[in-house]
Amino acid sequence: MTQFSKTKEPLRGIVPPMVTPLNADGSLDSESVEKLIEHLIAGGVHGIFILGTTGEFSGLSYRTRKELIRQTCSLVKDRVPVLVGVTDVSIEESIDLAEIAASAGAYAVVAAPPFYVNIDQKELYSYFKQLADSISLPMFLYNMPSHTKLTIEVDTVVKLAAHERIIGLKDSSAHAVYFQSLCHILKDQEDFVLMVGPEEMMAETVLMGSFGGVCGGANLFPKLYVELYEAALNRDFDKLKSCQHAVMEISRTIYQVGHYKSSYMKGLKTAMSFLGLCQPQFAPPLYPFSEAEELELRSRFEKIASSLMPQSS
Amino acid sequence: MTQFSKTKEPLRGIVPPMVTPLNADGSLDSESVEKLIEHLIAGGVHGIFILGTTGEFSGLSYRTRKELIRQTCSLVKDRVPVLVGVTDVSIEESIDLAEIAASAGAYAVVAAPPFYVNIDQKELYSYFKQLADSISLPMFLYNMPSHTKLTIEVDTVVKLAAHERIIGLKDSSAHAVYFQSLCHILKDQEDFVLMVGPEEMMAETVLMGSFGGVCGGANLFPKLYVELYEAALNRDFDKLKSCQHAVMEISRTIYQVGHYKSSYMKGLKTAMSFLGLCQPQFAPPLYPFSEAEELELRSRFEKIASSLMPQSS
Amino acid sequence: MTQFSKTKEPLRGIVPPMVTPLNADGSLDSESVEKLIEHLIAGGVHGIFILGTTGEFSGLSYRTRKELIRQTCSLVKDRVPVLVGVTDVSIEESIDLAEIAASAGAYAVVAAPPFYVNIDQKELYSYFKQLADSISLPMFLYNMPSHTKLTIEVDTVVKLAAHERIIGLKDSSAHAVYFQSLCHILKDQEDFVLMVGPEEMMAETVLMGSFGGVCGGANLFPKLYVELYEAALNRDFDKLKSCQHAVMEISRTIYQVGHYKSSYMKGLKTAMSFLGLCQPQFAPPLYPFSEAEELELRSRFEKIASSLMPQSS
Amino acid sequence: MTQFSKTKEPLRGIVPPMVTPLNADGSLDSESVEKLIEHLIAGGVHGIFILGTTGEFSGLSYRTRKELIRQTCSLVKDRVPVLVGVTDVSIEESIDLAEIAASAGAYAVVAAPPFYVNIDQKELYSYFKQLADSISLPMFLYNMPSHTKLTIEVDTVVKLAAHERIIGLKDSSAHAVYFQSLCHILKDQEDFVLMVGPEEMMAETVLMGSFGGVCGGANLFPKLYVELYEAALNRDFDKLKSCQHAVMEISRTIYQVGHYKSSYMKGLKTAMSFLGLCQPQFAPPLYPFSEAEELELRSRFEKIASSLMPQSS
Repeated sequence: MTQFSKTKEPLRGIVPPMVTPLNADGSLDSESVEKLIEHLIAGGVHGIFILGTTGEFSGLSYRTRKELIRQTCSLVKDRVPVLVGVTDVSIEESIDLAEIAASAGAYAVVAAPPFYVNIDQKELYSYFKQLADSISLPMFLYNMPSHTKLTIEVDTVVKLAAHERIIGLKDSSAHAVYFQSLCHILKDQEDFVLMVGPEEMMAETVLMGSFGGVCGGANLFPKLYVELYEAALNRDFDKLKSCQHAVMEISRTIYQVGHYKSSYMKGLKTAMSFLGLCQPQFAPPLYPFSEAEELELRSRFEKIASSLMPQSS
Repeated sequence: MTQFSKTKEPLRGIVPPMVTPLNADGSLDSESVEKLIEHLIAGGVHGIFILGTTGEFSGLSYRTRKELIRQTCSLVKDRVPVLVGVTDVSIEESIDLAEIAASAGAYAVVAAPPFYVNIDQKELYSYFKQLADSISLPMFLYNMPSHTKLTIEVDTVVKLAAHERIIGLKDSSAHAVYFQSLCHILKDQEDFVLMVGPEEMMAETVLMGSFGGVCGGANLFPKLYVELYEAALNRDFDKLKSCQHAVMEISRTIYQVGHYKSSYMKGLKTAMSFLGLCQPQFAPPLYPFSEAEELELRSRFEKIASSLMPQSS
Repeated sequence: MTQFSKTKEPLRGIVPPMVTPLNADGSLDSESVEKLIEHLIAGGVHGIFILGTTGEFSGLSYRTRKELIRQTCSLVKDRVPVLVGVTDVSIEESIDLAEIAASAGAYAVVAAPPFYVNIDQKELYSYFKQLADSISLPMFLYNMPSHTKLTIEVDTVVKLAAHERIIGLKDSSAHAVYFQSLCHILKDQEDFVLMVGPEEMMAETVLMGSFGGVCGGANLFPKLYVELYEAALNRDFDKLKSCQHAVMEISRTIYQVGHYKSSYMKGLKTAMSFLGLCQPQFAPPLYPFSEAEELELRSRFEKIASSLMPQSS
Repeated sequence: MTQFSKTKEPLRGIVPPMVTPLNADGSLDSESVEKLIEHLIAGGVHGIFILGTTGEFSGLSYRTRKELIRQTCSLVKDRVPVLVGVTDVSIEESIDLAEIAASAGAYAVVAAPPFYVNIDQKELYSYFKQLADSISLPMFLYNMPSHTKLTIEVDTVVKLAAHERIIGLKDSSAHAVYFQSLCHILKDQEDFVLMVGPEEMMAETVLMGSFGGVCGGANLFPKLYVELYEAALNRDFDKLKSCQHAVMEISRTIYQVGHYKSSYMKGLKTAMSFLGLCQPQFAPPLYPFSEAEELELRSRFEKIASSLMPQSS
C-alpha cells in the first residue's frame, strides 16, 4: 500500500470489518490480531476494515483503538488496503484517530454520523465536510441507521461525494431501495465506491454493478465470501447459488443464538474462537454467551464448518 | 381464471398494485377502471392486485371497495389472475371482503397485519391463521412495516407458510436481508411465492431466484416493468441495465415532487392522469398537487416518457 | 344530555373509555353493555366514551360499532354525555358513524388521525378540517401516537382549535411536555377541553389546571378515579396520595400480566369479568389469557379489590 | 461539599445541566465558565450538573471534558454539589472520567446507557452494575431515550436501585407514566432521588412528591426555576401558575427558533450569550444560528427578559 490517489483503481471486493481480539481484561489480544490478519489475507480478502461496528469500536478506549490502528497497519504491511473507522461523537477525537491512521500508513478512514445529538441533514453535511476538510486520508461515509439512528440521505451523499477526499460509502442499512438509489444517482462518478455491509445482500448488489461487500462473516470464512463475490462478478450463477446458501446458513444459525439484539456479534466472535482466531471476550456492554448458548453455537458451527471444508473455510 | 389449485404453477412476473381511479366526489371512476385494466393487460402484466396500499384501500369506503372488486373481476374476465387486498383492522370485514372476492372470481386475497392495536408475533400468527381458516380463497401475506408498523417476522412467516391456503408473501419492507432470509428458509417449499413490492429492487431479487414484483410504476409503464422482469429472468444484463435505469429515473423524479411522505402516491396517480388513465383525485387524507407541483411533475414526466417511447410505454 | 352548545360548561371530570362487552362469537354482549353502563354511572363518572382504543373499536365490524352507539345512547338516556369514537382510515366511514352518533343523541365524537397512510401535518390538518366540516356533532381530537404512529403536533392543534366544532383534545401520548405545551398555548381558549388518557398522570395534570381524564381503569373502579379527580381538583393532597397509590398499583399489577404489548387491554377486560361486568372475550387480533395467566391476574385483582372495598370500588 | 454519605439528606431542588462555554476554536472558554457558575449559584440553584446533554458532552474531546470537571469543582468550592456526566460508549473512558471527578471533589456522577450498540435490558443492567462497581463516587442513572434510543426500563431501575452506589435517576423521557411508575415502585426507598429533565413538567412532578428538576432553562434564569420549584414544594398555586407561564413561554419561543432538532440547544446557548454568560459557539455537529435566526431569537428573548425582570432573572 502506498499513498492513495484518485487516478488509481477504486477499491473492489471483500473488505471484512475485522473483529477486535480482546483479552479478558479488555486489553488488545495482540497475538490474535496477528493470527486473524494472516487468516484474512490468506483467505484472499481485498482489504481490511478495522474499528467498525463489528470491530466493537464504540466499546474500546482510545488507547486501545490507537494501538489497534498501529498494529494492524504494521502487520498488514501494505499487502491489502487498511481502512480505519474513526466514527465518534467528538469530531476532535475523530480527527485525532484519522491522523494516527495516516501516520500508520492506512489507506482510508471510514466515518458514520455522530450518534448522540439529534440533527438534521444540513448539520450532518456540515459535519462530514468539516471532518473531510480536517484530515489527510481519503474517507468513506458509513451509513448505519440501526446504530446511529440517522440515515445519510441520498441528497446528502450526493453533495458529499463531490468532496475530493470522500471516495465512497459503506451502506449497512440493508435498505435495497436506498442503495439502488445511490448507485443510480452516482453512476457517472464511476470511481465512487459503493459497498453494502449486510453479507446476505452482497451478491445481488454486485450483480447489479456495485463494488463489493464489508462482510462480517468473512472474519470466519474469508474464502467463502471472496468466492461469492467472484461468482457474482463473473455471473457464475451455479457457484453463486451454493455460496449464497452457505452465507445464509451462517446468517440463520451462527448469528441467531439466543435471539439477542447482540446475537450477531456474540455468535460471530465466539465462533471465531472455535477456530482459534480470538478469545470469546467482548467490550462492555456485551459479555460472553452462557455455557449452554456456547454449546448450542458450537453444534451449529460444526455443521456449517464441515459442509464448507475444505474448499472455502 | 378458475379455481386455484396447488398443482398449478405459482404466480410469477409483474403484478401491478392497481391504482384506484376516483371521481372528485370520492366515488369510483368506472370508466377509468376499465381503461386502466386494458392498459395493464396490453402491457403484458402477469396479474393485477387491487386494494393494496397503492390502491389507497385504506381511504376507501367498504361500498367502494366491494364495487371495485366486482368490476375488476368482471372486466378482467380471467385473462390474468386478480389478487384482492382484504387488509383491515376488523377481521370480520376482511372475511367479508374475501368472500366477495371469491364470489367475483378472484384468484387470491392479500392481507397485511391489522394496523392499529400493538401486538406480538404470537398474536399476529393467530390472527393470520384465523383469517386463512375463515376464507375460501388462497391468501398472500403482505409485509408492509412502513405502514402497519409491524413486521411479519421470518419465523412467523415460516409457521404460516405451512397453512394450505397461505401461498405466498409480498414484501414491501425494502429490507434485503429480510427478503433473502425468507427465500433461504423457504427454499424447499418451491411453490411458495415470494415477491417484493419496491420496484427499485425487483430486478436483483429475480436474479437471486424470486418470483417477480408488485411494482407500482407498472400502472404507468407496464411494458417497462415486464421487460425488466424478463431481462432479470433471462439474465440479459444489457437489457436489465437499460430498464433498471429507466425505473430508477421514475423513482427519482416522478415519485419525489414536493418531498412529501405521500409523494410516491401523488406523483404516480397524477402522472397516470397525464396518460388519461385516471383523474388526479385521491382518497383523504391525500389531496391533489398544487398547480406548480403538477407543472413540475409534468415536465419530469415528459422527459421520461419521451425517452421510453415507443418501445416500453 | 341535550343539544350541545358552546355556551354551556365544557366537559370536566372522569370519562371512562368504555370497554366493549363481547360474546365468544364476536357479537355485542348487550346484557353486559347495560350492566357496565349502570356500573359506570353509579360510580359517578362525568361522561362515557365509547369506541376508543380501550373499546377495541378497530377490531369491531361496522355493524357492531353502530349497534353499540345506538344501545349506549339509548341506555344512558342523557344522564351523562356520551362521546363516540369515529376514528377510521376512511373518512366516509367516519362521517357515517358520526351521523349515526348524532341521530342516537350522542354529545360529541372523538377522532384520531387516519392510521395507515404516512402523511404530513398539512395533510392531517386538512383531514380533520374536512371531517369536522362534514359532521353535525362537536368533535374531540384524539392524540394517540403509540397506535396511529402520528402525533397531532401542537401547531396543528392550535389551528384546528379555531374550528367551531372542534371542542377539545384527548391526549394519550403520556408526553408531559406535549400536554403542558397545549395547555399553555390554548390557555386563552378557556372552554377548549384538554384531557389526558393515561390514568397514571391524570392527577398531576388536573393539579396543573386541566379538565380531567379518560381513564381506562374507571371501567373497573369508577369511584376510585372520580375520587382521585376530585382530590386533585380540591388540592386534597392526602386523599390524592392514597388514591394515586391505588391507581398505580392497578397499573403495576392488573395491566402487566404476561408482559405483552396487549397486557393492559387483556388485564383490564379480564379483571372486569371477575366483577361480572363483561366476558373475557376480545376482538381479534387479541385473544383471552391462558388459564395460568388468568389465575395470576385473579390473585392480583383480589388483593387490590380487597384493599379498595368498600369505599372506592 | 464533602464526602457523600447515605445518611445525609438526598439531593433536592434545581440542578441545572450546565451549558459548556466554548471558544470559537472549540476550546473551553474558562472565563465564561466562572461567570456562569457564579450566575447559577447567585440564582439559588441546589446543585450543578456538568457534561450532560445540554453540556454538549458528546461533542467535547476528553481533554476538554477533564478540564471542565477540574475547573468546575475548583470554582464551585463545595458551595453546591457538582454532578458530573460520565456517559460514554466505552466503559473504560467512563470510569476514567469518574475517577477524575472523584479526585476533583465532585458529589456524584451521572451515566446514561451506552448509545451505539443495540442491547437488551439484561446487558444494560450488567453494564450499569459494572460501572457502579468500578467507581468510587455515588452515581445517578440518566434515562434519555430520545438520544440513547434505549429506555432504562422500570424493572431495570428497580434492580439497579439496590446497588449501594446508585442513588437516583434523572429522567429526560418526558414520559409521565414512566416517571410516576418509578415514583410508585421506589416509594419505600425514600432517599432514592427521582428528578425529571424537561422543565415543562418539573412543577407537576414536584407536586406529586418528586425531588426537583434538571432544568436547562435555569442556565438562563436560575431564580425563575428555583421559584417554580419552591412554589410547587409549598403548594403555592398562584406563584406556581405565574412561574409555569414564564417557563412555558421560554419553551415556546427561545427553544423553537428555526424548528431544528437542535433548536433547544441553539436557542438556549445563544440566549445565554445575550446575557454575557457564554459565546454562541457549539461543539460540532452543531453550529451557530444564521444572523436572521439570531435576530429573531433576540427579539423573543427581550420580550421574555423584560417580563421577568427584576424579580426572577
